[in-house]
Amino acid sequence: MKVNAYAAYEQGKPLEPFQYELGPLGDLEVDIKVEYCGICYSDISMLDNEWECTTYPIVPGHEIIGKVNAVGDKVEHLAVGQRVGVGWNADSCMSCEWCTGGDHNLCSSAQGVIVGHHGGFADKVRAAATWAIPIPDGIDPKVAGPLLCGGITVFNPLVLFDVKPTSRVGVIGIGGLGHMAIKFMSAYGCEVTAFSSSPDKEAEARSFGADHYVDSTDSAALEALAGSLDFIISTVNVPLDWGAYVNALRPKGRFHIAGAVMEPMSLSAFPLIVGQRSISGSPTGSPVAIARMLDFAARQKVEPMVEVFPLSQVNEALDKLRNGKPRYRIVLSSE
Amino acid sequence: MKVNAYAAYEQGKPLEPFQYELGPLGDLEVDIKVEYCGICYSDISMLDNEWECTTYPIVPGHEIIGKVNAVGDKVEHLAVGQRVGVGWNADSCMSCEWCTGGDHNLCSSAQGVIVGHHGGFADKVRAAATWAIPIPDGIDPKVAGPLLCGGITVFNPLVLFDVKPTSRVGVIGIGGLGHMAIKFMSAYGCEVTAFSSSPDKEAEARSFGADHYVDSTDSAALEALAGSLDFIISTVNVPLDWGAYVNALRPKGRFHIAGAVMEPMSLSAFPLIVGQRSISGSPTGSPVAIARMLDFAARQKVEPMVEVFPLSQVNEALDKLRNGKPRYRIVLSSE
Repeated sequence: MKVNAYAAYEQGKPLEPFQYELGPLGDLEVDIKVEYCGICYSDISMLDNEWECTTYPIVPGHEIIGKVNAVGDKVEHLAVGQRVGVGWNADSCMSCEWCTGGDHNLCSSAQGVIVGHHGGFADKVRAAATWAIPIPDGIDPKVAGPLLCGGITVFNPLVLFDVKPTSRVGVIGIGGLGHMAIKFMSAYGCEVTAFSSSPDKEAEARSFGADHYVDSTDSAALEALAGSLDFIISTVNVPLDWGAYVNALRPKGRFHIAGAVMEPMSLSAFPLIVGQRSISGSPTGSPVAIARMLDFAARQKVEPMVEVFPLSQVNEALDKLRNGKPRYRIVLSSE
Repeated sequence: MKVNAYAAYEQGKPLEPFQYELGPLGDLEVDIKVEYCGICYSDISMLDNEWECTTYPIVPGHEIIGKVNAVGDKVEHLAVGQRVGVGWNADSCMSCEWCTGGDHNLCSSAQGVIVGHHGGFADKVRAAATWAIPIPDGIDPKVAGPLLCGGITVFNPLVLFDVKPTSRVGVIGIGGLGHMAIKFMSAYGCEVTAFSSSPDKEAEARSFGADHYVDSTDSAALEALAGSLDFIISTVNVPLDWGAYVNALRPKGRFHIAGAVMEPMSLSAFPLIVGQRSISGSPTGSPVAIARMLDFAARQKVEPMVEVFPLSQVNEALDKLRNGKPRYRIVLSSE
């Protein structure tokens, strides 16, 4: 089956139309007719080979919403026509301790949708049936794509690390990830403090559910928060004054890194020891975690705020993400 | 009541005999006749004012074993003559959320035994009854002192972070803390890897229960451990190749800092994100955590290996700890 996609043939080049053939469908795979695909900053990292694992031509796109177009012979839980979503992973080994234990996203041989595999900037995409997650009724498919990567990246830590409705939490960065984090944490019942260097985002942050807004460039304001937050999630990919945020944690507090900052972080041991604090990271989520997130998002009406571009304008959309500060996430529409 | 103690009158000076008066005993306090007192490296940090919170004269000593000598009017759970232990804390507020929630060691106004309070290098010491923990039968009082600070420091993370008998764990540093960590983790049922730069400690590490010994200066050996350990506790207070140890963690693994290293740690976010790993610290333990540790130590025969000096030779004992690599913990005896 022929797929009509957009690919970058080389690093630094704009995307161009690209066709490729899908071979025979595996027993446990599905083909999906793409309706919408979000653009994540990691698509740009991959286009730029920032993580040194890109193979060209690359078809980006890993926040995919579409309808099942064909199912493998052994797929019983999905039907043709059913709406599903695919995020960072297209497959995993299904036999290691992580896959069999329900933590498929930790599988060391997990297949990234855009890592040596063609992604969702296309009319069709293939994935393992396990990784094609049914989209519940009540979620608008046009805006749902960003939940599949950005959304689960900020939602999963709440479940993993037992953030509670009684928790006081912080979100650093009000962008694609950050605005979803604010919405999820607010829906979770938490008291949410948003940290940003863009004061023009304060009103929107509050509309997403932030109870407080703090200028992240104001060191006195950070200092005043000492010992006040149970959980902080960083969604930015630039170096921060990490110590100031660790200092803002209450005893037992956790600083969680969702933004893939490349520069090493400098951290002092003492504030961790004295306050029994933790620093952690996590990669997207397992199929069951994604399904749980989608159920919660549908029930609590948590939706990303998106700007929609037609797939044919993918280069304009990428340029907007690189340079234009979209509010807050971009979705490509195949229609 | 007069206390005969040893104190440093100034930074850098040897300890000298020092007498002080204990005022009236509070309703919820006990006086303890000291039998034994361990020496912890943090006694030296305090003697040297390394943490800038020392008041002189300072009577060090916070790994205290003794018998209750007097009980306050409202103390009902301890009796004169009963053997108890006191560790880093002599008291805490008993009213904040941490004290009332069972995490007294996180109380922001906890009273350190040797921070603006006179410690256990003395014939008597005073503490809140809550912080004087009964020593179970079956624990040799001569060797038990180091459990009260060093022991709980390495034991408590096992409970806090749900280390399991099925876990593969690492201990960095085979010293006062590290040798107790190996013993506790071995008694816990874990597979234990000891890391040390002192090859002459390998045989003893194995006798404490280490299943494997790795030369911490051998970067190829560290590299070979990539993704293999669930939990690593660092008991040293010198900078390490932190990244190499984070890399040695399995998915969901935790690197826990028990050694109060002063230099900032340089850490990369990516290995935390990809592997869902955590870095953390913790301060000693609460009264209930100490009691649980003592019960486990008594039942599993976990005992520190100590060298005993008479209290009158406190300066020789401190010199041995500073310069002599004791094996593995020093205890002062009042007898």
